[in-house]
Amino acid sequence: MFNTVGVVARVGSELVRDGTEAVIAALRRRGVTIVVEADTAGMLGDASLHRAPRAELGASCDLVVVIGGDGSLLGVARDLCDAGKPVLGVNRGGLGFLAGVAPDVIEPELDRVLDGEYTSEAHFLLCAHVMRGKAETARSLALNDVVLHGAGHSHMLEFSVYVDDEWVYDMRGDGLIVSSPTGSTAYSLSAGGPIMHPSLDAIVLVPMFPHTLTSRPLVIPGESVVTVLVKNERDTAVRASCDSQVHLELGTASALTIRKHPVALRLLYPLGHNFYGSCRSKLDWATRLGGG
Amino acid sequence: MFNTVGVVARVGSELVRDGTEAVIAALRRRGVTIVVEADTAGMLGDASLHRAPRAELGASCDLVVVIGGDGSLLGVARDLCDAGKPVLGVNRGGLGFLAGVAPDVIEPELDRVLDGEYTSEAHFLLCAHVMRGKAETARSLALNDVVLHGAGHSHMLEFSVYVDDEWVYDMRGDGLIVSSPTGSTAYSLSAGGPIMHPSLDAIVLVPMFPHTLTSRPLVIPGESVVTVLVKNERDTAVRASCDSQVHLELGTASALTIRKHPVALRLLYPLGHNFYGSCRSKLDWATRLGGG
Amino acid sequence: MFNTVGVVARVGSELVRDGTEAVIAALRRRGVTIVVEADTAGMLGDASLHRAPRAELGASCDLVVVIGGDGSLLGVARDLCDAGKPVLGVNRGGLGFLAGVAPDVIEPELDRVLDGEYTSEAHFLLCAHVMRGKAETARSLALNDVVLHGAGHSHMLEFSVYVDDEWVYDMRGDGLIVSSPTGSTAYSLSAGGPIMHPSLDAIVLVPMFPHTLTSRPLVIPGESVVTVLVKNERDTAVRASCDSQVHLELGTASALTIRKHPVALRLLYPLGHNFYGSCRSKLDWATRLGGG
Amino acid sequence: MFNTVGVVARVGSELVRDGTEAVIAALRRRGVTIVVEADTAGMLGDASLHRAPRAELGASCDLVVVIGGDGSLLGVARDLCDAGKPVLGVNRGGLGFLAGVAPDVIEPELDRVLDGEYTSEAHFLLCAHVMRGKAETARSLALNDVVLHGAGHSHMLEFSVYVDDEWVYDMRGDGLIVSSPTGSTAYSLSAGGPIMHPSLDAIVLVPMFPHTLTSRPLVIPGESVVTVLVKNERDTAVRASCDSQVHLELGTASALTIRKHPVALRLLYPLGHNFYGSCRSKLDWATRLGGG
Repeated sequence: MFNTVGVVARVGSELVRDGTEAVIAALRRRGVTIVVEADTAGMLGDASLHRAPRAELGASCDLVVVIGGDGSLLGVARDLCDAGKPVLGVNRGGLGFLAGVAPDVIEPELDRVLDGEYTSEAHFLLCAHVMRGKAETARSLALNDVVLHGAGHSHMLEFSVYVDDEWVYDMRGDGLIVSSPTGSTAYSLSAGGPIMHPSLDAIVLVPMFPHTLTSRPLVIPGESVVTVLVKNERDTAVRASCDSQVHLELGTASALTIRKHPVALRLLYPLGHNFYGSCRSKLDWATRLGGG
Repeated sequence: MFNTVGVVARVGSELVRDGTEAVIAALRRRGVTIVVEADTAGMLGDASLHRAPRAELGASCDLVVVIGGDGSLLGVARDLCDAGKPVLGVNRGGLGFLAGVAPDVIEPELDRVLDGEYTSEAHFLLCAHVMRGKAETARSLALNDVVLHGAGHSHMLEFSVYVDDEWVYDMRGDGLIVSSPTGSTAYSLSAGGPIMHPSLDAIVLVPMFPHTLTSRPLVIPGESVVTVLVKNERDTAVRASCDSQVHLELGTASALTIRKHPVALRLLYPLGHNFYGSCRSKLDWATRLGGG
Repeated sequence: MFNTVGVVARVGSELVRDGTEAVIAALRRRGVTIVVEADTAGMLGDASLHRAPRAELGASCDLVVVIGGDGSLLGVARDLCDAGKPVLGVNRGGLGFLAGVAPDVIEPELDRVLDGEYTSEAHFLLCAHVMRGKAETARSLALNDVVLHGAGHSHMLEFSVYVDDEWVYDMRGDGLIVSSPTGSTAYSLSAGGPIMHPSLDAIVLVPMFPHTLTSRPLVIPGESVVTVLVKNERDTAVRASCDSQVHLELGTASALTIRKHPVALRLLYPLGHNFYGSCRSKLDWATRLGGG
Repeated sequence: MFNTVGVVARVGSELVRDGTEAVIAALRRRGVTIVVEADTAGMLGDASLHRAPRAELGASCDLVVVIGGDGSLLGVARDLCDAGKPVLGVNRGGLGFLAGVAPDVIEPELDRVLDGEYTSEAHFLLCAHVMRGKAETARSLALNDVVLHGAGHSHMLEFSVYVDDEWVYDMRGDGLIVSSPTGSTAYSLSAGGPIMHPSLDAIVLVPMFPHTLTSRPLVIPGESVVTVLVKNERDTAVRASCDSQVHLELGTASALTIRKHPVALRLLYPLGHNFYGSCRSKLDWATRLGGG
């Protein structure tokens, strides 16, 4: 099954380093081949580790384990998605909707996954393209969301939104969040977007502080192509931020196009994982009713 | 194509009667066979009309034309859905997201539809079942929504929600809206639910005035089975209202189950109909930006 | 200071009875004269207690102690407000924004209050009047809110709202919440209303599931007179519910008028009570930032 | 009454220039002394105009007329508030909640105001102070709002909010809007804040995309002193924007303090002006119910 396992960690945190060492120790006990991402190996300072650049992990590994918060997993997802290898997250950060393994049970949970006791969830990514006429000037994948926003003193943008070449609306406001189901529990949620089950083939558009008070979050089919034209006469800084980590600049006369990426990320979870259970614990929903 | 056309109208409005007469005149000019629903024929007072009970329209007609507001269409949808015949709405009522023909262009639009210049949209219905143990005590279809709510002095309910037998949450509040994509622009929208494209295979759960401030609208796959258990010790009046028109009583120890109905409604629209255009006009979204 | 203390409790709960006995024991140790509300005395079954009808507590006591949840305190507030006597809440119920004494520290906190170590907060009440022409057909006070809502199968109401005889808006929806600052953390909050500091001289109007998507909560001066005219052609059941406890019926051609009651409730809290602290604990706001 | 009238206009729009010329013509017919702000006079290119720097208008005039949108009026309000002179807005821009005179009735409305047929509304301003220890490093007035936000790639801020030295909450999110009642129909509204009657003595705090899902808009007394401490370890760009026009930089270890400014702006409106009527027309609330 998983004979070669890649290991990537967020660098710079004591907690994450401890977790990473626990992961490597557990993998060693299993006797699998371990490939450690170069920066991660640098953090660990263990010369015996077999290391590889991040870009090569996809090709050489059957499974990639990511230690950190959801932020670390977002980066790995964008970088390794096309390699088609499954990813397992070990949570040593914040909320952790994506990471399937809790920090206090790293070894037993890893063992279960390596024993085949896991479920695999396909999470699709969005691909954002900045176009100038017919030429693409920038692009990036995003697992959670592509956020269009201004970056100058004035936050206010004016833009037109099209879906599959149909005009949807014109808007003035701080921007637009285009989110996958995966991202619906992240930034989109704080902006009033709905929670979407990760298996949905749908994209949600959430306006940011829209001047039009009748604006509402809009859920569209996953196959839709979203195009945003920004009215930007003064060439002020307008950006499309992918997962809040990769920032694409939109110049004058640029268009932003967002569509579902054809290759989905395969996220692994130990058996028993349940999306609604994650919602209850991460979003702090009500406890059970007495006697209910 | 459409050789026999059924006609159903909302009874009691002068405007609707005028529209209905315009529809019948246009159909007569086309030479198609016309079957008028019994109450509608009574309103028109024309003894020459071939009339039939509502329940028989589905069997005898190739197309059913409904004149009125969205409310009229909801009723026809629930009653005739299983017959599998296409439905065309002529709007003489309020907002009119469902009706494809505007009141001032009845004849030309009807002609276009009868000429085959239409698009057909499948709108799935929900089916609500009230269960007492393993016995079903009541059921109804709903095109828009199934709304669980209290009907006594106190509006507050306590209930548990399950999706596909997984516990989702317990809630205290005024109730729960379970809406189809079609219903997402109706009651669900006023309660903070997202707008959902009608082609989505998804259901949205919107809590009504929840005590838990972290509650949010939740979009789940269309194949999901939603079960609600109401904690109802005093046997107060608890209801599941389907499209705000059919009201099912939940007694003590009852469960409410909601799932997608296997047969979808086929709604016709003259060519050029576009969901986003309906949103712009019905929801009064911003006009185009100058020069945008 | 407080020589005669009234005691009122919610009847029917073991927990409340225990708390009430603790209160009476603590008051006896202080040697103050105790007057127990008749139903409360019945629950305790102690023949030695000096009892009085609820309506007389205001006249005979210098302080009234209420044991229960916020619901119990709401009732006492409406009944005893005009007597002008301070009220102290002992929380044995739910959230407890109003009760100043936590259940596990009844005796020391009571002692502090009787020693004069308390703060007094004035909480104004609303008065709802149902008018038919110039005749008042019903009235009630409300500490939290007056909620206009339908009570029949259809929840939808159509009504016009006026403030100080100026037309504000017409609305279709499930109703209207008119809330005091005190009520802003109750029903109003679950309907999207803002949290208002209890010392504000302001009233908030929160529409319930309005059809008009541009509707928003509206905060108006405390001196405003709110009038609601319901368009009720079929004389369906329309109610104004005060604190969800007193329900006034609005018949055909009735108007509902709501204004600030001239006498405020004086709520006592042990020193150190702080509204923002209550918000943090009751509404489960974020814990402190690390190192923040 | 108003013997000397100042005139300030937004420079750069044909429409505004036409409106300004109409204002000056109307004032000339009245025979009042006219003082034109220097940039405005430059735009008009009329050498016969008596011109003065903006800062001197307050001292020399009895009334200042501002032609443009609400944006122009915000700037004049901040600059001239302390001079205590009344201000009249002529709307040639966008929504125009503040401007009392509509563009198509400039002359008759101006006449009415000069005849004394006006009402005067006091609108308080906020004053934002950036403090480094006990030293103030920057300050600005704001008529609408003070908005704390990040200005770098990452929008996320962590900050602690205090009111009158009481800790209110810690927050992660895009920032915080601190709005006056006047600003409650501007940016604050698009972020979910309530509409507040302009005569209220209250301030509203509206979190921007808070991570804590239980966060809600909070209305506090107008006399409150709001202090915000930003946890800013990396000294990234954090700003307090006043009316979206003046941008104060917060460096490391800075605090932002916001309090009501002691001098209020006096805004004039022709008689008949009504806040609720402005809401209806500017916010596009429902038209009257038929027969209501």
